[in-house]
Amino acid sequence: MKFTDVLIIGGSAAGMVAALTGKSVWPEKSFTLIKKRKEMMVPCGIPYIFGTLNSTEENIMPVDQMMEKNGVTSVVDTVSKIDKENKIVETAQGDVYQYDKLVIATGSNPVRPRWMKGADLPNVFVIPKDKIYLDEMVSKLRDCKRVVVIGAGFIGVEFSDEFVKKGHEVTLVEKLPNILSLAFDEELSTPIQDLLLSRGVKVITGNGISEIKGTMKVSSVLLESGEELPADAVILTMGYQPNSELAKTAGIMVDDNGFIVVDEYMRTPTPDVFAAGDCAQKRDFITRRRVQTMLASTACAEGRIAGMNLFNVHVVKTFSGTIAIYSTAIGNIGFGTAGITEARAGEENIAVLSGLFEGIDRHPGKLPDASRQMVKLIAAKYSGVIIGGEVIGGLSAGELTNVIGLAIQNRMTVNSLLASQIGTHPCLTASPAAYPLIKAAEIIAAKIRKNQGV
Amino acid sequence: MKFTDVLIIGGSAAGMVAALTGKSVWPEKSFTLIKKRKEMMVPCGIPYIFGTLNSTEENIMPVDQMMEKNGVTSVVDTVSKIDKENKIVETAQGDVYQYDKLVIATGSNPVRPRWMKGADLPNVFVIPKDKIYLDEMVSKLRDCKRVVVIGAGFIGVEFSDEFVKKGHEVTLVEKLPNILSLAFDEELSTPIQDLLLSRGVKVITGNGISEIKGTMKVSSVLLESGEELPADAVILTMGYQPNSELAKTAGIMVDDNGFIVVDEYMRTPTPDVFAAGDCAQKRDFITRRRVQTMLASTACAEGRIAGMNLFNVHVVKTFSGTIAIYSTAIGNIGFGTAGITEARAGEENIAVLSGLFEGIDRHPGKLPDASRQMVKLIAAKYSGVIIGGEVIGGLSAGELTNVIGLAIQNRMTVNSLLASQIGTHPCLTASPAAYPLIKAAEIIAAKIRKNQGV
Repeated sequence: MKFTDVLIIGGSAAGMVAALTGKSVWPEKSFTLIKKRKEMMVPCGIPYIFGTLNSTEENIMPVDQMMEKNGVTSVVDTVSKIDKENKIVETAQGDVYQYDKLVIATGSNPVRPRWMKGADLPNVFVIPKDKIYLDEMVSKLRDCKRVVVIGAGFIGVEFSDEFVKKGHEVTLVEKLPNILSLAFDEELSTPIQDLLLSRGVKVITGNGISEIKGTMKVSSVLLESGEELPADAVILTMGYQPNSELAKTAGIMVDDNGFIVVDEYMRTPTPDVFAAGDCAQKRDFITRRRVQTMLASTACAEGRIAGMNLFNVHVVKTFSGTIAIYSTAIGNIGFGTAGITEARAGEENIAVLSGLFEGIDRHPGKLPDASRQMVKLIAAKYSGVIIGGEVIGGLSAGELTNVIGLAIQNRMTVNSLLASQIGTHPCLTASPAAYPLIKAAEIIAAKIRKNQGV
Repeated sequence: MKFTDVLIIGGSAAGMVAALTGKSVWPEKSFTLIKKRKEMMVPCGIPYIFGTLNSTEENIMPVDQMMEKNGVTSVVDTVSKIDKENKIVETAQGDVYQYDKLVIATGSNPVRPRWMKGADLPNVFVIPKDKIYLDEMVSKLRDCKRVVVIGAGFIGVEFSDEFVKKGHEVTLVEKLPNILSLAFDEELSTPIQDLLLSRGVKVITGNGISEIKGTMKVSSVLLESGEELPADAVILTMGYQPNSELAKTAGIMVDDNGFIVVDEYMRTPTPDVFAAGDCAQKRDFITRRRVQTMLASTACAEGRIAGMNLFNVHVVKTFSGTIAIYSTAIGNIGFGTAGITEARAGEENIAVLSGLFEGIDRHPGKLPDASRQMVKLIAAKYSGVIIGGEVIGGLSAGELTNVIGLAIQNRMTVNSLLASQIGTHPCLTASPAAYPLIKAAEIIAAKIRKNQGV
């Protein structure tokens, strides 16, 4: 039996950050991190293995080095059992660990819809964060000309764009009427879809999959409309499920959707057991509903909270709920989203006003690399509190999305945004007289005045 | 006599935004903007006329079009007198305007140090926001090989880099020990200086100017050290003075430094008279001292506040003080600053802790265009409130600086930053596990724990 003060199960974003943060706050405690693979993938970098990067080798997250550098013991093994009463963990290799505090960061697994005929055929891929699987997938895709990507979320869009870079013929299929519809309202998803088309991706929306056909391997995809798409490979990007079997079996509480139940400090109801990342329960900052947000950035924030609160609660999770803040790029066009869309607000019956501003991300616009910039802000109709924002622009769209994220976290109102100070520069941002967040806020402010009959 | 509900004097950033915002909030009121020139320059774009852009024509701010589009009367004229008792303004062309509300946005003028011998010689230039002057300067500089830029603030650094692009031999001279020392602590100003050197700019620091020599025109610059630099042209970027003579003559209160006195709503003590932009008084958000910050972005924020509060005070300037937030770029390296530096905090006897993090602005780092990224955060030692931040990175450094700016405005603490949610993407930002603001905050948090003996 080995003893460790803190045992972390899982070595991706949440586990790694929980270990590093915890060790930094409690340097006198011993920390052990158990992960399944020696080499871990940068989660968000995975699509880029298939186009921009040369191999999985260029997408390795240096977890072992970081653990070693910071005094955390890193072990490659698989946890087979948690005994929460005796605070003991057993592994596949037969090791037994006694812990004082346990952090479960077992992540998520890609959905492979068993109900769909053909989902198990060779050359039908899902996207796990697993180097060995991905290496094999890279190798098999070399001989595939026609690739069908099913599900137009961020991962589907990123894979599609990377595949065309490598010369594949790519069709992206989405059941909903618009691509990226959880992230963007239609005014923004339409130009993003146009961009994807201009890059050579064929896009089919509002059309689900009936069946994946093939004998030895996949040969085509049958759509609900009856259309049949020839395919040498199919990529299923239809979401992820929390990997919580281990916790559930151990009697650690898991909710109806399979997420491990946690509080504001990432504590499970089981004493001394924390959970963080994709496997941990999340509640939306705005709607207060349970949500299935799975983002490496969210996982890191949760890992940090868990790490800080291991031996005593001393940092409250100020966000008090998950804000989905994420971004991506197609070529030199970046786009991002924070909080909830106007469509989502409608579904939740939240009264909102929105403002959409289109400008340019340099000033004067004659400067090289100037890019069109669109920002949509969504505010609560009566309080003016900012609850969402969507951005399309140049490559600074990622950090601009973070500006909106921070405004949401600080519960800023339209008026406080109007009275905000921002910094601008010709080569880096929009003009101060046309800074898109402020302009979008002005549009909302005008609507508020109109509503109030001012 | 002409009547206008609102008269705005000045058509640069503050005046333009005050007019647009005011007209938007009070569409039933008549607005007139008087500006000296038909064609106005994008203020921050001026350095780029001398390298990246082809002429001043590419740096025009479309003020007339924006005024016309929004129903504001735009007049090219110079105000010669304000009669605050009768609420009348007279112009150089002999027009007389009766106003209800007046906004003074007369900006600033570059300092030309009369005490310095030779400061008036031909080919010794300052940088006014004046197209005619700048056109002549562009023309004269064509024949100048050796250019000496005096004053290594943002404008001096930007001009130096633009001049080398055009093939000039450039020497940048700064009296203080470091370049950009109002904006950056030495850990960051040193790599920026190295970058400038690598671009071919010669940099001399800790050395003032004794005299500018020449007969028909400038021939050399004599440094305090005795060194003499041959020069075909000299650019003085030694700061700006508020242009407040008109207000002062009219009996509108001006402070010891020449700034028009204003309150939180940009109202002067004279009834119905507002001031905004470079000519208006500013108080630092952190130090609470009067400061001479002159930024187009600050001017726009002030113009917006003035415009919103013209006929009744309804939006409080939430920032309650000026936060200098600004950024620039040298080639593909962007850098920016928000709030106060550690050095400035020291001068003001503010107890602080700082954290400096160095990382990379993409993840994995193998992605193309990855750039080194440095972030320094400065926090109040006992409360942990963030009071300053400095950034060097790729071109998203401008918006990253705005993230810090928003953190300062919301008086976020190190702990609230640690518990913040951010969005990340391989092609747009640093890794979520190494997001520079969070990592810098962690370094400060560790210092706080150490101080508290935790």
